[in-house]
Amino acid sequence: MDRNIEVLDSTLRDGAQGEGISFSLEDKLAIVQTLDRLGVGYIEAGNPGSNPKDLEFFQLAAKLPLERAQLVAFGSTRRKGIRAEDDNNLSAILTAGVQTAAIFGKCWDLHVTDILCTTLEENLAMIEDTCRFLTGQGKRVFFDAEHFFDGYKKNAGYAMQALEAAVKGGAACLVLCDTNGGCFPDEIVRITGKVRARFPQTPAGIHTHNDRGMAVANSIVAVQAGASHVQGTFLGYGERCGNANLSTILPNLQEELGYGCIPRENMHLLTTTARRLAEISNVALPQGSPYVGQSAFAHKAGMHADGVLKVSHSFEHINPQTVGNERRFLMSEMSGRAAVLKKINAVRPELTRDSPQTAAILNELKELERLGYQFEGADSSFELLIRKHTGAYHPFFTLIHYKILTGRPSEEGCSASATVKLKVDDQVQLMAAEGNGPVNALDKALRAALEVFYPTLSKVRLTDYKVRVMDSKSATGAMVRVLLSSTDGRREWTTVGVSSDVVEASWIALVDSIEYKLIKDAEDLSKGGSV
Amino acid sequence: MDRNIEVLDSTLRDGAQGEGISFSLEDKLAIVQTLDRLGVGYIEAGNPGSNPKDLEFFQLAAKLPLERAQLVAFGSTRRKGIRAEDDNNLSAILTAGVQTAAIFGKCWDLHVTDILCTTLEENLAMIEDTCRFLTGQGKRVFFDAEHFFDGYKKNAGYAMQALEAAVKGGAACLVLCDTNGGCFPDEIVRITGKVRARFPQTPAGIHTHNDRGMAVANSIVAVQAGASHVQGTFLGYGERCGNANLSTILPNLQEELGYGCIPRENMHLLTTTARRLAEISNVALPQGSPYVGQSAFAHKAGMHADGVLKVSHSFEHINPQTVGNERRFLMSEMSGRAAVLKKINAVRPELTRDSPQTAAILNELKELERLGYQFEGADSSFELLIRKHTGAYHPFFTLIHYKILTGRPSEEGCSASATVKLKVDDQVQLMAAEGNGPVNALDKALRAALEVFYPTLSKVRLTDYKVRVMDSKSATGAMVRVLLSSTDGRREWTTVGVSSDVVEASWIALVDSIEYKLIKDAEDLSKGGSV
Repeated sequence: MDRNIEVLDSTLRDGAQGEGISFSLEDKLAIVQTLDRLGVGYIEAGNPGSNPKDLEFFQLAAKLPLERAQLVAFGSTRRKGIRAEDDNNLSAILTAGVQTAAIFGKCWDLHVTDILCTTLEENLAMIEDTCRFLTGQGKRVFFDAEHFFDGYKKNAGYAMQALEAAVKGGAACLVLCDTNGGCFPDEIVRITGKVRARFPQTPAGIHTHNDRGMAVANSIVAVQAGASHVQGTFLGYGERCGNANLSTILPNLQEELGYGCIPRENMHLLTTTARRLAEISNVALPQGSPYVGQSAFAHKAGMHADGVLKVSHSFEHINPQTVGNERRFLMSEMSGRAAVLKKINAVRPELTRDSPQTAAILNELKELERLGYQFEGADSSFELLIRKHTGAYHPFFTLIHYKILTGRPSEEGCSASATVKLKVDDQVQLMAAEGNGPVNALDKALRAALEVFYPTLSKVRLTDYKVRVMDSKSATGAMVRVLLSSTDGRREWTTVGVSSDVVEASWIALVDSIEYKLIKDAEDLSKGGSV
Repeated sequence: MDRNIEVLDSTLRDGAQGEGISFSLEDKLAIVQTLDRLGVGYIEAGNPGSNPKDLEFFQLAAKLPLERAQLVAFGSTRRKGIRAEDDNNLSAILTAGVQTAAIFGKCWDLHVTDILCTTLEENLAMIEDTCRFLTGQGKRVFFDAEHFFDGYKKNAGYAMQALEAAVKGGAACLVLCDTNGGCFPDEIVRITGKVRARFPQTPAGIHTHNDRGMAVANSIVAVQAGASHVQGTFLGYGERCGNANLSTILPNLQEELGYGCIPRENMHLLTTTARRLAEISNVALPQGSPYVGQSAFAHKAGMHADGVLKVSHSFEHINPQTVGNERRFLMSEMSGRAAVLKKINAVRPELTRDSPQTAAILNELKELERLGYQFEGADSSFELLIRKHTGAYHPFFTLIHYKILTGRPSEEGCSASATVKLKVDDQVQLMAAEGNGPVNALDKALRAALEVFYPTLSKVRLTDYKVRVMDSKSATGAMVRVLLSSTDGRREWTTVGVSSDVVEASWIALVDSIEYKLIKDAEDLSKGGSV
């Protein structure tokens, strides 16, 4: 198969309807550039008629040097009872200066009569007039057939008339929308097939929502049923349960089913694109996201890890490198010796299953797991553990003590203060800091003390902090596990600490984070790179 | 349509393979009871052969008074080259004391020869022997046909032989597994149809993974193609990208497609079940989760909100109340008023929608939710909030201050010390205590100070303590929500506190816990009872 599929990303328009999503101007420009670099064909960047900020954005974005992507302006059919040329929203689309407009129009009779409150005939005229007006101005028009599937199920004849009006007006594509996300794949296949049969000369598109968890599947089966244009948002953001997730759809179509969506040589950028977009959106990327999530190729069950080590496709549907992701073996009470050995060999290739160091590491692993440690997702702490057992580690500092005072009532915003006293070689450093909690104060004091000796630490930023109370029946005396993610802008790493004292557990994870950074810096330097 | 579908939840077995998921014994018992209350038919609760802790759990769980659910033990076919009766893993299944076992066996020839390293014939014998051995012991056997779809695509004949072996051995259900999550709906429909045609007397089941985002859709189309047994995990937890999400599949099948999965009258428990499971698992429920997410029925776009207010099904595929969720209008004041009023009336029956106190409570609720409070599962804190606004509250003590000192190095087992100074009426009390962490020390000091005045507090025990870091991108400066469960041997109650300081958040929840107890004691006394 080799059919090319037009891809339209609506993160900036439909995606912005998601709860908690809001983009600054800079965010929007960064998203456009990131999607362009991946090779997405169309970027729906806003509704210039309803939102003056969107209009402003289009004017700015027009100056971006894009390689491949075209910007698309979104808007509705002309208002009822006026001429298209008199409609301000349509004028705004022209002012936006784009080549392509996506125009949504009503295809469900209920919506025409009860929501829009006009006649069925006037709605058809609104669709046709709007498409004709814009194509007359030299624009390409994607007609977003709102509620098409629900409308078709209630009144197929009228839904088809709406499409016909768009075709008469010159629409370049009939985008069939499951606006409420209420369709199942069999319906999508059947109805898309009917549309293709009725309008064989006009390409069909698909736009789905995820209210029944079907958005991605429905997009795939629509393409298989003849659609050649797919709309979604890159990470599935959108109203209610979100839109179809393009980061899943693109590799599904291109790598698994042989359609062409983006340049082949760009598919390995998929994972970094997803992570960058999540970061810009300030939303954590769900770890289990297909293809791009941190766990997407993470093997925990011993038998799975063992199988993948024997034959990689035995438990993987695709090679993770294809999409720029990587395979991981999680450490757990269920994970096998083979997976652990693989990690040991990354640090010390010469060690085998039977080396005494291997046995020592496995024993300590077991003991730490008993205490509540869990190294899955805390690869960096595990690497440090391996280094400590194999002579590939030396401490970067020695703690003399830390002391934290916290209380209530307290000064606004600094309920805690910490002092840290430590030694690097023979030099003693004492540093104090305040924070909005004991861990925050300790974190600040420790960094301040160490940056004196290791200035590259100033580049480290914590990106995630998780606390898990284990054996929570022991209530406030229970053991606590802290997971800490850090970045220096180039790498991301995660470390773990366990203690009955949440402050101490955080301390352990913090120290691992800092030591890991310093070890990697030293490695980079020895390879002749810079830090 | 009215076909009944067997539902098997594997949160405790396959779900525990998800990265970051690990359940304590208490968690497991709570999950079983929560799923039973919803009416799930089968709960796969572990692999007694490979994990002694799972065996221990089955023996404990056997004593739970379950209404509807049957526990299922999971295991593999007998090892190669031995008799089923000599296989320890199979003996462990018998020891687990369940009526039903799920046995997985290899159906993909590659896995037999290259992973299991045995002959195709021996593998068939392993399947048949194992099923026969267990059915001979009076057990019902679900045969989990591992890698069935991948195997069928490579070598259909052998995959079918594997099923045939299970049928000969007496399997009650042929559960077709898409173990690697690499199938699309059209393949699932085609292959499930072939299996139904070949084995019309033996029910077929479906077990899917989400590596291509298809797990839910594939489960649905498999049922439409004749499967009558569905396996998944309630919130989609599982290896890599997770398993099929039952909280989406159940309402899809039952409410939208007319199949029977759980008792009709229980469907309104769906949302609370999902939220409770997420809380037990200490994993945030994704806000856009179909049916059960906080945003699942949240309308942000003005046109959508307007449409829903005119005709609710114009932008909703189902009534949110059916699944116990609620419609929300973002950035509007209409959210959840009815639900809140219901709680208010439990304390003050005379208040109405329009009472000024109702408005004041709603305003404070909104403000607290903005800060990160969530009263779902912390009813006691919410009752206190209502009391504070309606004159049904007086403070039992006033805090003058608390101070906590923590540090490292520290004495073994008491890394923190706390002093609490408080006033009851005009009497000042100062108390100090040590603990194995700052919260533990504070907890002890506060109780010691208050028991002087309120001796019944000595009966209160904390039974659960959970910490959730919100907005974890803010790392150690993030807001933290603490949930605290308490009991006095008769009642159980849960309270909540939020702060950027984990100690302060715990303090808030502790104070609520104590006040709630004292209020209930006073009520009991006024009813003539004893405390």
